[in-house]
Amino acid sequence: MARRRLIIVGGVAGGATAAARARRLCEDCKIILFERGPHVSFANCGLPYFVGGEIAEPDSLLIQTPASLKARFDLDVRVKTEIVRIDRTARLVHAREVETGREYDETYDALILSTGASPLKPLLPGIDRPGHFMLRNIPDVERIMAWSSECGRCRAVVVGGGYIGLEMAEQLRRRGYEVTVVEAQSQVMAPLDPEMAAWLHRELRMNGVSLYVNDPVVSFEPPSGREPAKSSIVVLKSGRRLPADTVVLSMGVKPEVTLAKEAGLEIGKLGGVRVNEHLQTSDPHIWAVGDAIEVRDGVTGQWALIPLAGPANRQGRIAADHILGRPARYDSTLGTSILRLFTLTAACTGANEKALRAAAIPFEVVHLHPGSHAGYYPGAEPIAMKILFSPETGKLLGAQAVGHEGVDKRIDVLATAIKAGMTVHDLVDLELAYAPPYGSAKDPVNVAGMVAQNVVRGDVTLAQWHEIALLDPRTTFLLDVRREDEWVQGAIPGASHIPLDELRNRLDELPRNREIIVYCQTGQRSYIAARLLRQQGFRVKNLTGSYRTWDAARWLSEQRRPEVEGSE
Amino acid sequence: MARRRLIIVGGVAGGATAAARARRLCEDCKIILFERGPHVSFANCGLPYFVGGEIAEPDSLLIQTPASLKARFDLDVRVKTEIVRIDRTARLVHAREVETGREYDETYDALILSTGASPLKPLLPGIDRPGHFMLRNIPDVERIMAWSSECGRCRAVVVGGGYIGLEMAEQLRRRGYEVTVVEAQSQVMAPLDPEMAAWLHRELRMNGVSLYVNDPVVSFEPPSGREPAKSSIVVLKSGRRLPADTVVLSMGVKPEVTLAKEAGLEIGKLGGVRVNEHLQTSDPHIWAVGDAIEVRDGVTGQWALIPLAGPANRQGRIAADHILGRPARYDSTLGTSILRLFTLTAACTGANEKALRAAAIPFEVVHLHPGSHAGYYPGAEPIAMKILFSPETGKLLGAQAVGHEGVDKRIDVLATAIKAGMTVHDLVDLELAYAPPYGSAKDPVNVAGMVAQNVVRGDVTLAQWHEIALLDPRTTFLLDVRREDEWVQGAIPGASHIPLDELRNRLDELPRNREIIVYCQTGQRSYIAARLLRQQGFRVKNLTGSYRTWDAARWLSEQRRPEVEGSE
Repeated sequence: MARRRLIIVGGVAGGATAAARARRLCEDCKIILFERGPHVSFANCGLPYFVGGEIAEPDSLLIQTPASLKARFDLDVRVKTEIVRIDRTARLVHAREVETGREYDETYDALILSTGASPLKPLLPGIDRPGHFMLRNIPDVERIMAWSSECGRCRAVVVGGGYIGLEMAEQLRRRGYEVTVVEAQSQVMAPLDPEMAAWLHRELRMNGVSLYVNDPVVSFEPPSGREPAKSSIVVLKSGRRLPADTVVLSMGVKPEVTLAKEAGLEIGKLGGVRVNEHLQTSDPHIWAVGDAIEVRDGVTGQWALIPLAGPANRQGRIAADHILGRPARYDSTLGTSILRLFTLTAACTGANEKALRAAAIPFEVVHLHPGSHAGYYPGAEPIAMKILFSPETGKLLGAQAVGHEGVDKRIDVLATAIKAGMTVHDLVDLELAYAPPYGSAKDPVNVAGMVAQNVVRGDVTLAQWHEIALLDPRTTFLLDVRREDEWVQGAIPGASHIPLDELRNRLDELPRNREIIVYCQTGQRSYIAARLLRQQGFRVKNLTGSYRTWDAARWLSEQRRPEVEGSE
Repeated sequence: MARRRLIIVGGVAGGATAAARARRLCEDCKIILFERGPHVSFANCGLPYFVGGEIAEPDSLLIQTPASLKARFDLDVRVKTEIVRIDRTARLVHAREVETGREYDETYDALILSTGASPLKPLLPGIDRPGHFMLRNIPDVERIMAWSSECGRCRAVVVGGGYIGLEMAEQLRRRGYEVTVVEAQSQVMAPLDPEMAAWLHRELRMNGVSLYVNDPVVSFEPPSGREPAKSSIVVLKSGRRLPADTVVLSMGVKPEVTLAKEAGLEIGKLGGVRVNEHLQTSDPHIWAVGDAIEVRDGVTGQWALIPLAGPANRQGRIAADHILGRPARYDSTLGTSILRLFTLTAACTGANEKALRAAAIPFEVVHLHPGSHAGYYPGAEPIAMKILFSPETGKLLGAQAVGHEGVDKRIDVLATAIKAGMTVHDLVDLELAYAPPYGSAKDPVNVAGMVAQNVVRGDVTLAQWHEIALLDPRTTFLLDVRREDEWVQGAIPGASHIPLDELRNRLDELPRNREIIVYCQTGQRSYIAARLLRQQGFRVKNLTGSYRTWDAARWLSEQRRPEVEGSE
């Protein structure tokens, strides 16, 4: 019997994983891995860190080479080789060597497409000017480094405030650049809801990065004697003109589906390859994985594009398993993701408010600011947490967190809980590792469960940060229950002040004909106040996340600037 | 209607939580909290850190005071007041003020016992000698500090290598003591299996702490002119005599059930108060929570004593909820716990091998040593992980991890997975937050799932570290597939060496009439080798955890000493 032939197009993440997995399952198979670029299996998520010098050697991003994959897995790896056409009837791919132009065919029994995503590049005037860069592979990084080595105190403009844009902003700042981030939407980091992204706005400004939101780029103009710059003048819709010695274009990605489309494979409405639960395309001999495909959102059930390394690797393994007769099924993607931005960590999992509204799924939101570990052990800092859940069942729908220490841990626990179909009641019962350096007897995740459980059970009614600006003082009484020293450092305009510990004895100062919205620093003491007032017959809501969430959201504004600029 | 009266005995952890929760649910209730000691709601888990100066002020351990609890929650807190008797028929407790001797009764509608656990103190000759300390509350810490302030270069002997013993060993070492840990069993930290505890043996010795295992204390003798010491000569079963200027007794705890027993409440076989799923004792007007009760083990279903702060707090909330008519049920305890020991973190959740054997639950074990984050990003270090699971269903039964960074995160994720009833297959599908500083595209937890899944599916058969010493070379061939540079630095005695990348071309060097046990540094490359060999018709097992687990386990031995002593 002839050796079974597996061909994989694309040698990064999903493709490389599929090839290695296939060999472990099938020592006899002929496995050919085609890659258009010069490298296979490189760590593309590490690219930005190389720019700022955190990762010193570009070679350390090369996890495998064609030679090492040959020696270890007997893989036939062909880099700098493009697949230009699939002949589905004959089951062959037509390959072209990028450097020599040589063309040839290879037949397959099974074909895996791992073609990834390509950067979005809108047709803006001047977008191809010199000194404009995108970040997709090691040569891209080397080009940025070469361009900027000639430049002293450079000004960089980063167009797009997503993961890569923000990571590049930080790394260029580390390099000593003057950095400006330009974002067309009202906030950076679309997976976060605005009041959580606001922490990132603050962190950027605290670290000396300029940020313009709600202001898309309309053109890139040539510099002039009056407006000198090494690269371009970045012109925004507002009319703002930003001279740039380097421009980083990080405006998102789109699935790379040219090959699939030309082969007549089904493409979804979002533009990704459509696959079934075994990651098979509309042709049962062709599988597709990674950033090129559409997946089901794990919370909303809708089709989605979720270009992340973790799911891509998992899909590679599943495709190889299925091709080689193993039980293998890809269910959905939650989109758990994380960003480090200077001293901050921001992470999220599941659905955000926007996604839940779009899917018409009812949800409730709690905010909290628990300490990263026991308050009596040095170094604890608050984590801003947001939990989204079903108001009826308490089922977890999404979570977001921003802070310094322990953010990744809590989001990973919550991602596991969402995957397991847990409710906020289940979060209360989780047994998480507690010693003073690591957490608290009531871990932030437990506390999140308790806070949300109180809402589901009807023990407390919440107000949200964005409602505060719309309050009518004729119908609403805003009550601050913090200590005097907190109150004098800044409060929400229009609030009255009674410290929690005096509240029980000062009930006659409160109106019974208005709704009371009570807040403290984080929402914990105001919850105690809300319970007290409700049992005394008042109509009361607790401002979830309280002053800390309300104050953070003010960083969404273009105007807010740090009082102390970040050092250079 | 008269105010409902809730009395709580014991003002730490579960008791304090129950009181605060009860007030939030019932503004009208009369709530009295009795505490024998001088403090309520203090952070007993922080006590050791105060000894070494990591926590500077003992007052920072006082989370609440009677006055603050009065002001905020209208609690009637009575410290230094002991409950000496419960009259169940009259529903009253008989209280005695410790300092004045004044006695009085208080009636209750509901009573919560949160009496905690007391340190074990076997009847050894000399155990009450001066300079012997146990660690249960702030006065205990202050006594240790006062005793040792007069002592220059002190020698401390810590009797018992559990959590408190090891934390005290570290803190006393930080204080500059010469520290010896004495343990009656063959390993420290009973919740860990021996090969995992071995990392702690290594860490103690690397930090200059002497450790004697398998050697119980038989007596404490007075010092003499020939054997000078400020406190005692600690005499071990082996005859070893350890002069000690300070002795810390940390030999475990037992439930404090005197009050419950004298009131005729049902006590379990392990000596804890027996409660139902609502934490009610055999008297429906009396609830019990915390270290004093027996709980169901969340994996084995057996009754267990699990004295931990997290469950105690949770139980306090549940008891208050149930008393006040809320849905509230306590299911079981997994016993997730964590220890920081010098630079190491060790944590575990669920059942260990001993517990599973005792419960006659079949299990399989995998070891792995994944990096704490992406290898190409600086600072990644291996985590020693152990996963226990059902060989038939793959259901997760337990997990243990030791390392530097990210141990707490992985154990918390695994604790959540066990609570959710997940299998090792589910671990593969978890979506955990990945950016290079935090993890890998295949997180250690995903990798653990893959490794275990390969076992459940029968793709690989494992050998365990403890089988190596028993191998018969006539029937078994031990094969090292690491690189040459790894092999020369030390290998398992009797092994042959063929690097993985040469294996496919050197198959004729391997015996077909013997079982091959293959190992590498961590078990990952040897798994690839095992798959290759098996498909080539060899009988093969992969040594799970490989050299790293086998080598670590050698630290269990009394003899092994660090080549470089820890600095002082």
